[in-house]
Order: sequence, then structure tokens, then C-alpha cells
Amino acid sequence: MRNSRRGDVDPFIVMDVMEAARAAETAGRHIIHMEVGQPGTGAPQDAVQRLAGDMSRDPLGYTVGLGLPELRARIARHYRDWYGLDLDAERVVITAGASGAFLLAFSALFDTGERVGLGAPCYPSYRQILKALDLVPVDMPTTMAARMQPVAADVAAHKLSGLIVASPANPTGTMLDIDAMRALADACAATGAAFISDEIYHGLAYEGRAVSALEVTDEVYVINSFSKYFSMTGWRVGWMVVPKDHVRTIERLAQNMFICPSHASQRLALHAMECGPELDLNVDVYRANRALMLQELPKAGLGKFAPPDGAFYVYVDVSDYTDDSIKFCAQVLESAGVAITPGLDFDPVEGHHWVRMSYARSNEDIREGLVRLVAFMAEREAAA
Amino acid sequence: MRNSRRGDVDPFIVMDVMEAARAAETAGRHIIHMEVGQPGTGAPQDAVQRLAGDMSRDPLGYTVGLGLPELRARIARHYRDWYGLDLDAERVVITAGASGAFLLAFSALFDTGERVGLGAPCYPSYRQILKALDLVPVDMPTTMAARMQPVAADVAAHKLSGLIVASPANPTGTMLDIDAMRALADACAATGAAFISDEIYHGLAYEGRAVSALEVTDEVYVINSFSKYFSMTGWRVGWMVVPKDHVRTIERLAQNMFICPSHASQRLALHAMECGPELDLNVDVYRANRALMLQELPKAGLGKFAPPDGAFYVYVDVSDYTDDSIKFCAQVLESAGVAITPGLDFDPVEGHHWVRMSYARSNEDIREGLVRLVAFMAEREAAA
Repeated sequence: MRNSRRGDVDPFIVMDVMEAARAAETAGRHIIHMEVGQPGTGAPQDAVQRLAGDMSRDPLGYTVGLGLPELRARIARHYRDWYGLDLDAERVVITAGASGAFLLAFSALFDTGERVGLGAPCYPSYRQILKALDLVPVDMPTTMAARMQPVAADVAAHKLSGLIVASPANPTGTMLDIDAMRALADACAATGAAFISDEIYHGLAYEGRAVSALEVTDEVYVINSFSKYFSMTGWRVGWMVVPKDHVRTIERLAQNMFICPSHASQRLALHAMECGPELDLNVDVYRANRALMLQELPKAGLGKFAPPDGAFYVYVDVSDYTDDSIKFCAQVLESAGVAITPGLDFDPVEGHHWVRMSYARSNEDIREGLVRLVAFMAEREAAA
Repeated sequence: MRNSRRGDVDPFIVMDVMEAARAAETAGRHIIHMEVGQPGTGAPQDAVQRLAGDMSRDPLGYTVGLGLPELRARIARHYRDWYGLDLDAERVVITAGASGAFLLAFSALFDTGERVGLGAPCYPSYRQILKALDLVPVDMPTTMAARMQPVAADVAAHKLSGLIVASPANPTGTMLDIDAMRALADACAATGAAFISDEIYHGLAYEGRAVSALEVTDEVYVINSFSKYFSMTGWRVGWMVVPKDHVRTIERLAQNMFICPSHASQRLALHAMECGPELDLNVDVYRANRALMLQELPKAGLGKFAPPDGAFYVYVDVSDYTDDSIKFCAQVLESAGVAITPGLDFDPVEGHHWVRMSYARSNEDIREGLVRLVAFMAEREAAA
């Protein structure tokens, strides 16, 4: 049967790593998973118990397309609690994860062939979703000096119809401060480009606080998720805040493209928002893991990394050791039993010199992973 | 902020009906809901209990993009049990409802500007999702003689790159028999058009059995859902069967566009597939409701309808009474306290002469709704 051109998106290289790690485990080896992009924890226990109660009482049929009104209101309150912002709940749209939010945002904002800018390295699916919608992802090189984030001058220079930023970012963990965020918002406003801020790692910041784009402008699509801080990856629920005059467009698109996000997941999200103390214990684990990473990676000779302000990643420059990050990651897996991710998924141009290490798992796992990495690099050095 | 052209999709007219019904209820009136497109029942009780157990034991993180392997295998077995087909589980893709399946299918099959045929009347979101993807929905008029389904000659006549059929169909409930299904598949094969068969109402057939397109060809995208027979609307989980050589393309698109369908919903679906006896009791209710509809609607002078072979709808020609089905439905709601849907969502051209009545609710509700409709039409006649 026929195929479309736009459906021919790139494979994830990390999938090969995950498959190799799985095969090694099947063969009896013990593997430390520093390749994964999700918490090892599940949803908060109290929230799960409350959902079980809901399930026994309610058929949980379709919700309205924009999502449960009480969840939208609760998220509006979250902006007051976390950012001191007064947000109209009507602007909050519940989505099928951040993934669903991207599909809605790109459909509402861009027509075929339009150019959307991304600071490289970035989350690979931005590019692939844009391609699947027949839009043009424009990779913009970043610098360590600008925390590997796009800068205001990029917007006009690359003739963009839109810009996607992420802070804290995947794979680097770097953040935009309020001045950098404002400069990017202003640059978009000046050129008429749509400004999209991916804030799914908010709540996971270790040096200062993460700034929301809503603190500098209302002319933005802010995308967030219950997958990271709220530890609900598999439930596929997130949210988006859009300008007031875009709500009806998004509602129509959402009704048609999704009908609604999972009702059960929306209920769970509502309960999870009352579980701050349990969730903050997860953050304590990440914070301790991050401190270990910052202490031990330089001992392994892996000290060239982007400022890891938040999320649960360190993005390491391995150009001193290899021009082929895929091969390097395969060696680390084979020799050290540690799964890490080559940079090429995040940056097709420079990624052969970089690897991403995740510290989303338990403290014990990260400690053991670092011991293995230090030993591996020492042996490698000795053999060289 | 900027808007795209393709994001400007049509609103659902039924939403106005639902809002008016809700307002009437708030004002203290008792409304019978024959406008809804979902079962009044929830997921099978035993399945819900099993999911509650899963939730307490497992963090339910991401699944792989194609979905839980055990659910894919169970669905393959379902094709043996229901259709006598030997289906490779590798061809089964779990999706975020049928909605998610449409997004994947259209992205994988069609490039910008290509023409995709729909027999009018049809499910409105086909048109709107196609528009949002910058594809061209082509409404093809149908006839009562062809059970309001497209016919083979339409494919070449309308220069289609693809054809979507639904059997049983929404809003008509009509089905394609095996000869009609084969003729459509052959017509697509002859012209190189992609053939997409929406089978989400399978399991809800009252006159003979519903034929799967997989019985006549492997060169088809078959889309199904756990929302209707399995009574799991709000859980947003469905599936798709694709040609073997399309699985990798769909996998890459699914990983990027959705990451995965809700893990909990996939588990629930797996459990629900073992709950046939409870689900068949729901079908008994629909069967009794349908018999009541066929008996009472002609008494109300509403006897001109498409053959309602399956699903839970009757699509009624009201051209003897009105040229404005929106106004007619508003009158029925206002005077009779019965919410029904104008045809214009399903057929922008002829829908002003048609209304859709759903019999998905309880037997008591449908009985009362019909009493009200018969009385309303008698009064209307007396007043005329």
C-alpha cells in the first residue's frame, strides 16, 4: 500500500540502546539504566488509591474536549502557588500528555511548509512531529555560553514562523533565566513568530527556580505535563496554557483529534496535585543524584557538560574520546554495563560528540553507575 | 498571536444541543439523552477491579510505542475468535482511541493536499482531522439503495488517494456486506488508493454479523476501539491493524506523536477482553432498544430511516417536516424534552433534512424518549 513522504520520520537511536540493554539483561548481565527519560517512581500512592475509589463509583466516560473543569481550575491555582501568577482557568487545556499538546499547538499555529526553530540539541520528537505535519523543523546551533539555549537573534536570522524553547531542557537540563526568556518572547513578538515554551521539567530545578514564559508574556503557548515532577508518565496527561483568543480553536481541534484525554488520568492528575510532600521526596532523590553526578563525572574525565540546572539529565561532551557517540555508548554498555544515550537523537549535527546521562533512577543505581563509569574510563585511559 | 488556516476546523453542532440540554436540566427539566454517542455503561466491573490491583503493584510507566505485547497478541486472537482469521500480532498497533489511530493512519498514508473520500453522512471528525493535516476530505453522496455507504465507482470518479469506510456506520448504523466490502477494497487496489476501514462499532450488530475488511484484503488499515462494545469511552484506547510493511513507519510515528497510549487503559482493555458475558448484556439492552425504536418511530411519523444494522443509532429523514434540522432538534428538546442531533455535523450538504437518534442509554430512557417523541409529533400534526 502507498506511503506518505511526511510519515517517513526518523527512528530513535536510543531504542537501539534500550534493545541492547534488554538483550544484555536477558543474557544475565546487570545493567544500570542511565538512558531512560522517565522517573523510576509511579504516581503518588495516595492519588492512586483515590483513583481506585473513583473507578468503582463512576463510569469515567468522555470528558469535555478541554478537560475536566476542576482540573483546569486546579492548574490555574498551581500558577498562583508556584509562580505568583493570576491565570484564567479558561486558558488551561488538558491534553493527552505533552505529546498531545504539541500536536494541537502545531496544528493551531502553523501551515504547511512553515519554519519552526529549535535550539539544538533538543527533544527529538519536536522535529519528527513537525515533519509529520509537513512543517519544517529548523535546528539552530547553540553555545555553552548561552547555556545551549536559542538566543533572540536566532528568531529573525532563521526566518521563523515559530520558536520552541524548553527550560529546563532535555537533554541538557539547562534553564533560561527571566531575562533570556523575555528576550526570546520579545523577539517572537517583533517578528510575528509564535512562541512555544515547553515547561515539562518544571518542579525539577536545583539551582534557582524555573521561570515560566507566562511570567513575561501572555502571547505564548506553554506546554506542561504530569509525567515528570508528578511522576505519571504512562498515564499520558499534560496541559497547555494558550492565549484567551486561541481557546476556541484549540477546543475544536481537541474535540476532533482526541475527543478528550483519558478521564481516569485526569482524575489521577487532580489527586496528584495534592501530593506535594510525596513528590518532593522524589525531587530529593534527583537532587542527591545530581550532586553525585557533578562530583563523580569529572573524576571519570567526563566533566565537560552543559550547566545541568534542572530535569534529570547531564549532557556530556565526549569529543576528547570519540567522534562516534553511538559506538562510545555501545562500549560503555558492553564494558561497564551502563546504558547511556548517544547525542544524535537530540542533535543530528553535533550529537556524535555528545552523550546524555539520566539520573532519574534510584540513588543506589546512580551511585553504582558512576562507580562503573569511573572504572571504565580509567581502564580505557590505561589501555590507550 | 498568529493562527494557522488548517487549525480553523468546524465546530460540532451537537455541542450546542448538549449545552442546551444541560441548561434545561439545570433549570429543573428532565431530559432524555438520545444525542449521545457513547454507552451509558462503564468498563466491565471485573476489569476495573483487576486494574485497581495492577495500579497498586506497578508504576505503570511508558509502554513501548506499539503498545503492550500481550494486548497486541490478545487482539490477534480476537480476530480468530470473532472472524476466523489468522492475524499476525505484529500487525496490531495499540492507539490512543480510534482518534489516535486516525492521526497515525492519515500521517502515514497521505501527503499535503491529497484527496480522501468519505461517504456522506459520516463521523464528522474524519473531515476535521483531515483538514487539520492539510488533506482534502471529499464528501461523496450516498443513496438509501446502497445503504448510505460509498460504492466502488466512487473511488475512481472522485480521484481519491484514500477511502474511509465505516461499518456499522455512524450516524446511520448501516453495514457493508462482504461483497460490498470486497468491491470497495478492489476499487482502491485498482487505483492505488489507500483503504481505511473504521470498525469501531463491531460487536454491536443486530442483523447478521459485521464483516471486517481483513476478511477481504490485507492491504487495509483497520481501525477499532475499546469505546463501544467494550464500553470504555473515557479511557481512550483503541487499535489498528496495518499491512506488515507499514508497521515500522507507524511505530516511529507513534513513538514521536504519542510516546504510547495510556498504560492503565491498555491494561484495562486486556482485562475487558475477558468480560464477554457482561459486555453481551449491554448488547442485549441495545438490541431491545433498537427493536423499540423500529416499532415506535414509524408511529411518530419518523419511519424514513437508513437500515439500522448495527451501532446504536437511527438516522431519520425528517424532510417531510423541516428544511432546518437544527431548528427541528431545538423544538424537540424544548417541547418534548428529548435531545437528538441534527444531521449537519455528519453531512453538511443534506444534513438539514436528517436527525440522528442514539439508543445507547438504558431501556427505560429509550422507552420514555419514544413516548415523548410520539406525543410531540402527534401534537405537532394536530397543530398543523
